[in-house]
Amino acid sequence: MNKSTKINLSNSGLKPTNSVKTFNHLGEEVDSKVAGELPLTIKINNTEIITLMTLGTRPEELTLGYLRNQGLISNINEITSIDVRWDIGISNVSTTYKDIKEITDKLKNKTVTTGCGQGTIFGGTLEKLYDNILPDIKIKKSEIFDLLAKITKYNDIYKEAGAVHGCALCDTNGVLEFVEDVGRHNAADTLSGIMWLNNITGKDIIFYTTGRLTSEIIMKVKHMGIPIIVSRSGVTNMGIELAKDLNVTMIARAKQRSFLIYNNKNNIIFD
Amino acid sequence: MNKSTKINLSNSGLKPTNSVKTFNHLGEEVDSKVAGELPLTIKINNTEIITLMTLGTRPEELTLGYLRNQGLISNINEITSIDVRWDIGISNVSTTYKDIKEITDKLKNKTVTTGCGQGTIFGGTLEKLYDNILPDIKIKKSEIFDLLAKITKYNDIYKEAGAVHGCALCDTNGVLEFVEDVGRHNAADTLSGIMWLNNITGKDIIFYTTGRLTSEIIMKVKHMGIPIIVSRSGVTNMGIELAKDLNVTMIARAKQRSFLIYNNKNNIIFD
Repeated sequence: MNKSTKINLSNSGLKPTNSVKTFNHLGEEVDSKVAGELPLTIKINNTEIITLMTLGTRPEELTLGYLRNQGLISNINEITSIDVRWDIGISNVSTTYKDIKEITDKLKNKTVTTGCGQGTIFGGTLEKLYDNILPDIKIKKSEIFDLLAKITKYNDIYKEAGAVHGCALCDTNGVLEFVEDVGRHNAADTLSGIMWLNNITGKDIIFYTTGRLTSEIIMKVKHMGIPIIVSRSGVTNMGIELAKDLNVTMIARAKQRSFLIYNNKNNIIFD
Repeated sequence: MNKSTKINLSNSGLKPTNSVKTFNHLGEEVDSKVAGELPLTIKINNTEIITLMTLGTRPEELTLGYLRNQGLISNINEITSIDVRWDIGISNVSTTYKDIKEITDKLKNKTVTTGCGQGTIFGGTLEKLYDNILPDIKIKKSEIFDLLAKITKYNDIYKEAGAVHGCALCDTNGVLEFVEDVGRHNAADTLSGIMWLNNITGKDIIFYTTGRLTSEIIMKVKHMGIPIIVSRSGVTNMGIELAKDLNVTMIARAKQRSFLIYNNKNNIIFD
């Protein structure tokens, strides 16, 4: 994809796995691949915002997407550069404005969610959530099956090392971007950053995730403007409630040639 | 287990799943079980600490374990009651002391981790982490296999609804407590609360989890004093590093009759 904004980005993506020496149940030495997990502290104009634990493959896009999905920065043109330095564990965001009091105020109001870990959302996240709802976009059953078949070719890091979740931006032609991270929320945020950076609107996108559909992940797709979400895993009750409120077409337990529709059955064409 | 402390606990555990109407890929209506996910705001002496998203089956023990694992309260005898009210989403903790400034100070210093979601640890979590290391406790290969066989009978909610992780306290005779929650960190914290409440020391305990072994979960078992951790899933690099630093015997990818040892091979007896 072509970058359509003028942000100056460092290119500090890391190799996702490394080899470690393990022993199997017979006591035999076995070389294993292990997923990385590194702290990355996001700073805006040198003010510390938050520390994320990440696989580290796409730290600049993760930073962007985190700021976007948390509602901390609403206009990407206000960001001039993102400079990631792993030696000090910092992702430094420079902006066009000097005063970031408006941002630090938002950090005061926090909720720990547990999509899967104990996640954190800040006050800013909920601010614009209910301003509008997502459009009704139709999708054919055959297109979902086709996508599920194509997606099995991804999940590289998971196949090699386990311990990661994968998320993807797809359209009816296939997978546009597939991101894995130690946290499925990081993977989702990185995709959000990629969309922001490349000026991709969510309307024609299908969001795929290997992880569960909790309230938090539904919030994220809403912030990304994506009307259809497909998961290999299950859903929670609050995930369903929020999908109804925001008009997210919600498909889960999707594997090979079967799936369950948890919301917006009318948007599925049973061809 | 018998409660050995005098805390006054509400008994507000919820039913973990409820039925929803879904549609399968043929458009046929299917009844599905879905895991609950509710916000629970922990307050200490009416001061708001944090909001967790939880399945809600054991909210009092979750509250206790959260406060313990985050290092926010270090002596259980300082807690007089925990009163959970789902109608207002509050778990109110009453303590013997009035001034909780020491606790609220700890909340200022936060790190968002991603075992799996974007978790949060507060300054207090790291405070006593490195004060000592865990003891070398031996375990036989046959005992691990025996445990893996016994554990397959649990995971009730997962089997019914998916979208949850399970964690268990075990000893070499079997499973003592098995807890599932929408977040594996909640499940671990609930077990920590159960241990605290029943004055169970970690030395002879084996911690089992369906989830991945990231740095955050290793921190939790250290806070619980548990020297051996067994996971069905994989590990991250930082999980291994921390296990080495804290002397956690780390077994992962454990299924049926196989596992990999990522740290402390010397504690495994290959019988």
